[in-house]
Amino acid sequence: MKINLENIVNKVFLKSKISDFQDLDHIDGLSISTISANLYGKDRDDLVMFYFREGANYASVYTKSKIISENIKWNLNSKSKKIKSLVVNTRNANSFTGAKGYQGLKEIAEELSIQLSKKQKEDEDHPKKVLSSEIIFGCTGTIGEKYPTEKIKRNIPELVNKIRYTQNKLIWIKAALGIMTTDTKPKLAMEECKIGNVKIKIYGIAKGSGMIYPNMATTLGYIFTDANLSNDILKKLLKKNIETTFNAISCDGDTSTNDMVSIFSTAKKKNLIIKKISDKKIKDFDKALNSVLLNLAKRIVSDGEGATKFITINVKKTKTVEEAKKICFSIANSPLVKTAIAGEDPNWGRVVMAVGKAGVYINIKKLSIMFGDFKIIEKGQLVENYNETDVANYIKSEKVDLSINLEMGSKNFTVYTMDLTKKYIEINSDYRS
Amino acid sequence: MKINLENIVNKVFLKSKISDFQDLDHIDGLSISTISANLYGKDRDDLVMFYFREGANYASVYTKSKIISENIKWNLNSKSKKIKSLVVNTRNANSFTGAKGYQGLKEIAEELSIQLSKKQKEDEDHPKKVLSSEIIFGCTGTIGEKYPTEKIKRNIPELVNKIRYTQNKLIWIKAALGIMTTDTKPKLAMEECKIGNVKIKIYGIAKGSGMIYPNMATTLGYIFTDANLSNDILKKLLKKNIETTFNAISCDGDTSTNDMVSIFSTAKKKNLIIKKISDKKIKDFDKALNSVLLNLAKRIVSDGEGATKFITINVKKTKTVEEAKKICFSIANSPLVKTAIAGEDPNWGRVVMAVGKAGVYINIKKLSIMFGDFKIIEKGQLVENYNETDVANYIKSEKVDLSINLEMGSKNFTVYTMDLTKKYIEINSDYRS
Repeated sequence: MKINLENIVNKVFLKSKISDFQDLDHIDGLSISTISANLYGKDRDDLVMFYFREGANYASVYTKSKIISENIKWNLNSKSKKIKSLVVNTRNANSFTGAKGYQGLKEIAEELSIQLSKKQKEDEDHPKKVLSSEIIFGCTGTIGEKYPTEKIKRNIPELVNKIRYTQNKLIWIKAALGIMTTDTKPKLAMEECKIGNVKIKIYGIAKGSGMIYPNMATTLGYIFTDANLSNDILKKLLKKNIETTFNAISCDGDTSTNDMVSIFSTAKKKNLIIKKISDKKIKDFDKALNSVLLNLAKRIVSDGEGATKFITINVKKTKTVEEAKKICFSIANSPLVKTAIAGEDPNWGRVVMAVGKAGVYINIKKLSIMFGDFKIIEKGQLVENYNETDVANYIKSEKVDLSINLEMGSKNFTVYTMDLTKKYIEINSDYRS
Repeated sequence: MKINLENIVNKVFLKSKISDFQDLDHIDGLSISTISANLYGKDRDDLVMFYFREGANYASVYTKSKIISENIKWNLNSKSKKIKSLVVNTRNANSFTGAKGYQGLKEIAEELSIQLSKKQKEDEDHPKKVLSSEIIFGCTGTIGEKYPTEKIKRNIPELVNKIRYTQNKLIWIKAALGIMTTDTKPKLAMEECKIGNVKIKIYGIAKGSGMIYPNMATTLGYIFTDANLSNDILKKLLKKNIETTFNAISCDGDTSTNDMVSIFSTAKKKNLIIKKISDKKIKDFDKALNSVLLNLAKRIVSDGEGATKFITINVKKTKTVEEAKKICFSIANSPLVKTAIAGEDPNWGRVVMAVGKAGVYINIKKLSIMFGDFKIIEKGQLVENYNETDVANYIKSEKVDLSINLEMGSKNFTVYTMDLTKKYIEINSDYRS
């Protein structure tokens, strides 16, 4: 098995090692199927189904773009309390595809509902029908191209046929590979925690490499847990934890029409019922969920298109979190800061520029700026013993931390981004060709 | 003279031809001096003085960054009604240089006031002293480096000595070259107009190539006229016309701490006194000023760092100008749109993405998108006869026009930007080295 796995991983991306991934195994109540519907060509999977035979509770957060894709419309229209299947395709975003794009999803959902219902009948003693309203979709890829409804429909038999009722690391990596577009690495994360005395798993996969900026649920992220949690609790936990994770990353300041992060709970574990997220018993789960989301969010940034450096921006002691966030993103989205770091040039003047343009009132006499552990500006002045060579050496590393302290209040925010390189331009100048 | 001029222009930049520039000559009441203070090295001018022996009325608009450079602070503190001299240095922005940076300007102004007063005494029968408060500064270059006060002070005698009381095309090009940083071309523009029956000249120079986004007076721009206009009228005309010119361009979405556009009137022409900008007699001047500013603004964009294409973005029929502007800049600052155009890929899906993320309410069923004369989206649908090859051929040209029509109201806005190329990354990864 190990060798197979290395092969699969190496085939698609060369930078990661198997040991980079944690040991994900089975989530009770979940099945996965991955196939190639030939959307990209035959040599990679591009259609992934997550299937919950007995249904799953769920919650989603979606893009805040004023133009949303047809699958997001479909999902928003789904009023089902439980979800039976999440189907994710790559290569085509089903965005700006109009009524035909929406109709395509309807046809696929109807066909899938027939075939899944049939499979349930074959496999189970007391099968329940799968309704098309119990199916939701994730789509990612080019905007505005005709949605490949027929291709996907044609492949539904294979998709259903390939359902595996148990998962291991290989299956998870295949699923994470199957939802990729320009990503160079699959993104997976897991945590284990407890609700009361009951052990709980939280697994997640994500994709995203460009068009990444945090107006909610940036990119695609799917979290699976065997906990028994209501839709309401899932929604509240997801909304709360998305703010400091998926909503705290930026690759290029662009926001997709398809962004979606969902959490599904199969309710296979018999934990105590949680009614409020302030309940102490949910604390450990809350923390673990944050870890999974942050882990995935960081993996997206470190695989940002053309990235050579992972940049963490800490803005401290502002009056409001909103102010800290504004300054964080002003720096994170500044091409001049990002190119300076790409060039390993400790050009802190550009950080000053980005702080200034954020529009937040600043008392320069209190401002401090650090690159890693190197203090550069203290109380608005270049430090006396400033040694540019030390800082230049520091930013040669793959991980660069910037800290900006305003000394104006008690709020903080942290944002994760990457540098801006020629490779980014290369990838995006001929993405479609 | 012609050959000299070609040599000077060719020495610094190879892309322009002398014929690209209009025939600027003398503005009565203005003198210019350009020298090398060895800020960049000896082989180019980097210190430029505009000198008004009898003073000039003036108005300025400055950056809206919350961190402003020391020279902008100096200028804002200047309460003098008439200006005798504008001194512009490159290579050092005098930003984030604290009390020492400000003190440097004070010392330079004092020394210059002594030497200019001396020169006036030698040259004129009834000389007036030049006060240090009658001197303002433009600074551009790296942020946060120690301001080269001594170097500049040492060169004041040469700067005063090289004053030329009359201008020709050569002098103007030298001045425009002398204020450049990463620019590859000098930027000049001129118009002639009338106030009543009196012929008036409006000349302008500008610099700017990166860190360009329109929070007021982006980059440096200096306009000179021989009209007799009050500070109040100059201010109102400048503010009004900056909105659709310098504030309608973006190269990379970054805003400088040093942005400054000023207009100086030597009052040598005896035109009728203008008391209100609604006065019909000022209409022709108003229009000509807009032309000069727009001409300069466009030159900045077309010389944007690494630019290979000049992009015009027209957003039409929005409810408010503010909405049109938001969508314009959302497109103009989108790295994904800019890289697609760099790659000559008519990826209109990215334009849709950028329209969506602007946060303006859109009725997709009314939305139209055009590339040049090619209609791509009409009433929210891809046009039936859409031919990607035609559009791909169209964006091979150096000038690309995008039009987005919302059909929601009657307001419009136009923004000018350029593509995002590997060259941009190259320039900004090692700007200081």
